[in-house]
Amino acid sequence: MRPSKRAAQDLRPVTLERNVARYAEGSCLVKFGGTHVLCTASLEDKPPPWLRGQGRGWVTAEYAMLPRATHTRTRRESMSGKPSGRTQEIQRLIGRSLRAVTNLPALGERQITLDCDVLQADGGTRTAAITGAWVALHDCCKWMHGRSIIKEFPLREHVAAVSCGIYQGEAVLDLDYEEDSVAQTDANFVMTGGGALVEVQASAEGAVFSEDELSVLLALAKGGIAQLVNIQKLAIG
Amino acid sequence: MRPSKRAAQDLRPVTLERNVARYAEGSCLVKFGGTHVLCTASLEDKPPPWLRGQGRGWVTAEYAMLPRATHTRTRRESMSGKPSGRTQEIQRLIGRSLRAVTNLPALGERQITLDCDVLQADGGTRTAAITGAWVALHDCCKWMHGRSIIKEFPLREHVAAVSCGIYQGEAVLDLDYEEDSVAQTDANFVMTGGGALVEVQASAEGAVFSEDELSVLLALAKGGIAQLVNIQKLAIG
Amino acid sequence: MRPSKRAAQDLRPVTLERNVARYAEGSCLVKFGGTHVLCTASLEDKPPPWLRGQGRGWVTAEYAMLPRATHTRTRRESMSGKPSGRTQEIQRLIGRSLRAVTNLPALGERQITLDCDVLQADGGTRTAAITGAWVALHDCCKWMHGRSIIKEFPLREHVAAVSCGIYQGEAVLDLDYEEDSVAQTDANFVMTGGGALVEVQASAEGAVFSEDELSVLLALAKGGIAQLVNIQKLAIG
Amino acid sequence: MRPSKRAAQDLRPVTLERNVARYAEGSCLVKFGGTHVLCTASLEDKPPPWLRGQGRGWVTAEYAMLPRATHTRTRRESMSGKPSGRTQEIQRLIGRSLRAVTNLPALGERQITLDCDVLQADGGTRTAAITGAWVALHDCCKWMHGRSIIKEFPLREHVAAVSCGIYQGEAVLDLDYEEDSVAQTDANFVMTGGGALVEVQASAEGAVFSEDELSVLLALAKGGIAQLVNIQKLAIG
Amino acid sequence: MRPSKRAAQDLRPVTLERNVARYAEGSCLVKFGGTHVLCTASLEDKPPPWLRGQGRGWVTAEYAMLPRATHTRTRRESMSGKPSGRTQEIQRLIGRSLRAVTNLPALGERQITLDCDVLQADGGTRTAAITGAWVALHDCCKWMHGRSIIKEFPLREHVAAVSCGIYQGEAVLDLDYEEDSVAQTDANFVMTGGGALVEVQASAEGAVFSEDELSVLLALAKGGIAQLVNIQKLAIG
Amino acid sequence: MRPSKRAAQDLRPVTLERNVARYAEGSCLVKFGGTHVLCTASLEDKPPPWLRGQGRGWVTAEYAMLPRATHTRTRRESMSGKPSGRTQEIQRLIGRSLRAVTNLPALGERQITLDCDVLQADGGTRTAAITGAWVALHDCCKWMHGRSIIKEFPLREHVAAVSCGIYQGEAVLDLDYEEDSVAQTDANFVMTGGGALVEVQASAEGAVFSEDELSVLLALAKGGIAQLVNIQKLAIG
Repeated sequence: MRPSKRAAQDLRPVTLERNVARYAEGSCLVKFGGTHVLCTASLEDKPPPWLRGQGRGWVTAEYAMLPRATHTRTRRESMSGKPSGRTQEIQRLIGRSLRAVTNLPALGERQITLDCDVLQADGGTRTAAITGAWVALHDCCKWMHGRSIIKEFPLREHVAAVSCGIYQGEAVLDLDYEEDSVAQTDANFVMTGGGALVEVQASAEGAVFSEDELSVLLALAKGGIAQLVNIQKLAIG
Repeated sequence: MRPSKRAAQDLRPVTLERNVARYAEGSCLVKFGGTHVLCTASLEDKPPPWLRGQGRGWVTAEYAMLPRATHTRTRRESMSGKPSGRTQEIQRLIGRSLRAVTNLPALGERQITLDCDVLQADGGTRTAAITGAWVALHDCCKWMHGRSIIKEFPLREHVAAVSCGIYQGEAVLDLDYEEDSVAQTDANFVMTGGGALVEVQASAEGAVFSEDELSVLLALAKGGIAQLVNIQKLAIG
Repeated sequence: MRPSKRAAQDLRPVTLERNVARYAEGSCLVKFGGTHVLCTASLEDKPPPWLRGQGRGWVTAEYAMLPRATHTRTRRESMSGKPSGRTQEIQRLIGRSLRAVTNLPALGERQITLDCDVLQADGGTRTAAITGAWVALHDCCKWMHGRSIIKEFPLREHVAAVSCGIYQGEAVLDLDYEEDSVAQTDANFVMTGGGALVEVQASAEGAVFSEDELSVLLALAKGGIAQLVNIQKLAIG
Repeated sequence: MRPSKRAAQDLRPVTLERNVARYAEGSCLVKFGGTHVLCTASLEDKPPPWLRGQGRGWVTAEYAMLPRATHTRTRRESMSGKPSGRTQEIQRLIGRSLRAVTNLPALGERQITLDCDVLQADGGTRTAAITGAWVALHDCCKWMHGRSIIKEFPLREHVAAVSCGIYQGEAVLDLDYEEDSVAQTDANFVMTGGGALVEVQASAEGAVFSEDELSVLLALAKGGIAQLVNIQKLAIG
Repeated sequence: MRPSKRAAQDLRPVTLERNVARYAEGSCLVKFGGTHVLCTASLEDKPPPWLRGQGRGWVTAEYAMLPRATHTRTRRESMSGKPSGRTQEIQRLIGRSLRAVTNLPALGERQITLDCDVLQADGGTRTAAITGAWVALHDCCKWMHGRSIIKEFPLREHVAAVSCGIYQGEAVLDLDYEEDSVAQTDANFVMTGGGALVEVQASAEGAVFSEDELSVLLALAKGGIAQLVNIQKLAIG
Repeated sequence: MRPSKRAAQDLRPVTLERNVARYAEGSCLVKFGGTHVLCTASLEDKPPPWLRGQGRGWVTAEYAMLPRATHTRTRRESMSGKPSGRTQEIQRLIGRSLRAVTNLPALGERQITLDCDVLQADGGTRTAAITGAWVALHDCCKWMHGRSIIKEFPLREHVAAVSCGIYQGEAVLDLDYEEDSVAQTDANFVMTGGGALVEVQASAEGAVFSEDELSVLLALAKGGIAQLVNIQKLAIG
């Protein structure tokens, strides 16, 4: 029995609220249950320095948690002087996931930065961030397209993400903090709207896992991501 | 004529929403028009190292802006490695303002950190932060008092803050970004519920100012802060 | 009774010694009693990057204390890796104060940096620094004007600064360390030679203060700054 | 056809040379073809601060590349002030992989640090590092056991790692730099001697991938890791 | 002919002014011609952490230049985040030089920090700093001895330093900036009052040098240091 | 009697292995007994920024130790955020030593960086590094010359280095760690193939030293460096 009474294959209630930031070219407040992430897309009219003159754009991401997004207060990373390894790992994952469905040449020499700021954390912040950031990126692309900044719509597909894990011996979808903190295996899957894989990250936390367990987790993730993509479709109308 | 059509002595619409952060001992989402600041109060069971063994507590503040709280994206301070001078100035101001109305010995050897994170910025973020942080601090004190962690309620008074400035030759209250960016004089006032002064910071931006102008600004601020204190009283019910 | 036996409205002995640094375009060793600050003005032939191409110059300031300027040794900020919040607050104040009396377009695309290094600290270092930095800036402008680097003399007015505070219930001028460390209210005023206000920073340290008290402090400051401006006039001959 | 003429399921020549560092409690120079990593295990007689008093030990890893391990010189991370996101991601992976096969309570309150320094890089540095670090860790455990520092041998199993990817449409094992730099999908697998999974990290670089492709990559990895474990067994005699 | 018209074996005018810093336990403003260094000695009642419990004290030094001590303004090291290699090299040299003549066990578990801040630089700042720091250290020891903090006077000998170099083919003593900036060989010698060597640092700047040249430089240094020790003796009277 | 049974004037066994790094333009693994340093020369097609447009090249060096090159593990400098003073001192010394024998205009507007990474440390790492870096630099110059990147061979002479010290009252050559850690005087000499001096750094560690002792150390160094230059000649064939 999961602490939240959910069945193994149940997502938490998911909402995607658009246009939540006055100045951003695209924005989305995503909630996976008690996990709330504010995602904004910011357009810059030049690519990062190392990409200049190549006729392509770039999509990148930054991720942070408000200090009291967590049960006990977490030290602000601007005070400790640098983003932690965990933060960097997550923002690299978000960036790769969104680039996988973006036609970068179609962006022209521009950069879109997705800022994913966790207002409240209850497990699965990185998967919520990817799912919400896609909406913000979509709206930014629409904004650009509507103003004829770009000719071709640069997003090829939906992308969404979900976590799975083995909790008390059972494979479950979309772990909340209570489950996540004791799960034996923890996996994050990123998939496209068409069902292709973008990222698989599975990690033994307390016990190693078998190929069969990986298959079960993947099957759960497919179901969850299909639902998330539907929610994205409803959100962007 | 002010861009927002407000009269010189008008505040923007102000709201104070409590209990917006699941884990914090006190929290408040404060809005001064388009300026939105999420304030959380976090209790720690020990004072800062330099205060150990003195039988007193401490109240401190940290302030930050989300990267896209602003018209154009601002670089994240965790990436640049240290909080800017402006950030440090503001968080020192918030901390001093709240300590001025707190009975620190009554807190015992504990620390309360007020995190003020600007979700959207339209001028006056530091004054909104002080006004909202007071509510978060109040609720944190109530939480402690309700659990008998402290015997005496440690907040002596309300404290609130507002900006004033000289915009196109006229003294006006609670400047928004459009006014603030061109104001000749910019002043921030922090006052208690009883009308006493806690902080006065007035600065010539483009033109020096006279004693009479300072008096007019102070009179505007008194009116504004009285209203803010009333809104705080309604909020805490 | 003040520890130094001064009357409430008395400045400490103030001296302004010019041409104390061989290489600087302007320099001044300012002493407010036991507070000694070495101020140098350094001309650079280009403005800061963000001001390029706008036909204006810039005046900025840096402030530091020698490690043993204080009663006990203070850690060197180059060792801790960054200037403290207090340091940044002070150097921003010095910069704003001097810019308020400088005709920046008349400087052309140049920058003048005022370095204010406290050799010995006995309270009021920031106000001494502003008062002395004005002399260094004046001499730097004269140096430029004498070499026909600029056509118009860019300093419009004198600027000087002084602290006031409420010490043992009484408003007093130009606090030394012994007074400052126990003052209930601490205020710094920056004014022009013509008596206009440039900055007002008043802060409740232990007790809040009233409008009347603010008025008394302001009156004291006016008297003190008038004397300081006279001393500046004598110094620049 | 692979640039190295290897068949799809071929590893590069792999060697594991023990006792290469005079002072370390365990060490191994691992070569996967042109990729050379020097791994040392260093024993410390206390655990990291956050683990004190819990009766368990810890295994952690640090990873770095010599500046000229790469085709063009890479800036030294001690000069840029902090390890990059990629470095942190890799050292977290190495640490997790080794902890998955270590009986941490059997270590007692001690820490073993695996330093993995890449002398020459030709693709697959992280998988070579894990494979070699296991040998260094093994020898460190043997050293401790031989001196009766610990009673129970704390390593439960072998652990080794290999990369797979889709190169020019074909799934191949153990990519070298020439393959890696153009692979469409890049995956790293960490498995135990018993064939259980420890980590799966698969990432779409240029094209998304299917479940079937993931299965093929996993099958290749199983074969490669079985060989690597045999080479480890030979090495430790 | 030297730019300053000095003979090859001439020092610049040297002065050692004591008691120039109100709070320091010892202080000295040393001038070697246009090179002015303010040296303070600060006593701390505990040794550095790595020396605790060994019954010995420590003497250390820090060195910095005011930004406009130099012909053109030098960036403040607190702004760049860390002391430069040159700064660290110099402060390590000063520390070693003074420790060579100090009876560290006689200090007890205490630390004396010599801060050497260059107010004006005209070549030879490190040798002036050593010569002046010795006086500050002497006065700090006397202060401690006078208060019976220590029983035995811990300074065994004088120590002083001077630079030599080959300027336009001729060996000269105590180079000023004009000479130093074009010298082919640059050497710094630290010697005791008894004529023993403490440090020799000779470096080819533009041309290598012979053993004979080293001997000539050493002979010059001996003469110069003997004079400096006499000036120290007069200063401490 | 030396711990290694060597006579006073004996070097440890020295080897210089070339072409040890696949990608570097020049490389050398130098061993002075148990001290092993990997030296690589990396060519960059532009000089450092401050040398642009002057028609000359530059030679610079970086130095680091692997964490477990030492008896007990040393913290990685990329983790502490900056190279230590010792590291900076050594890399400045290596750079100066190599520049002293390089015809910088003959390099053209290019930079060669010598990375000296200590794989194992047993005393004398800086002198081994200089001796090995010369070989790497030589091979880099040969590589450039062979490809007609430069017309004139830019290395004028050999350069090599050795340490000497006074160990148990006797002057000895090429100290190992056991000797170095207790030596009273520690000196490093850098000389050219022609016997000219490039750097002399002699330092009293526990006892001051006399001119005669300096002469004895210098004589030992001359003998040692002559041997090292012969070994370099054999190595480069």
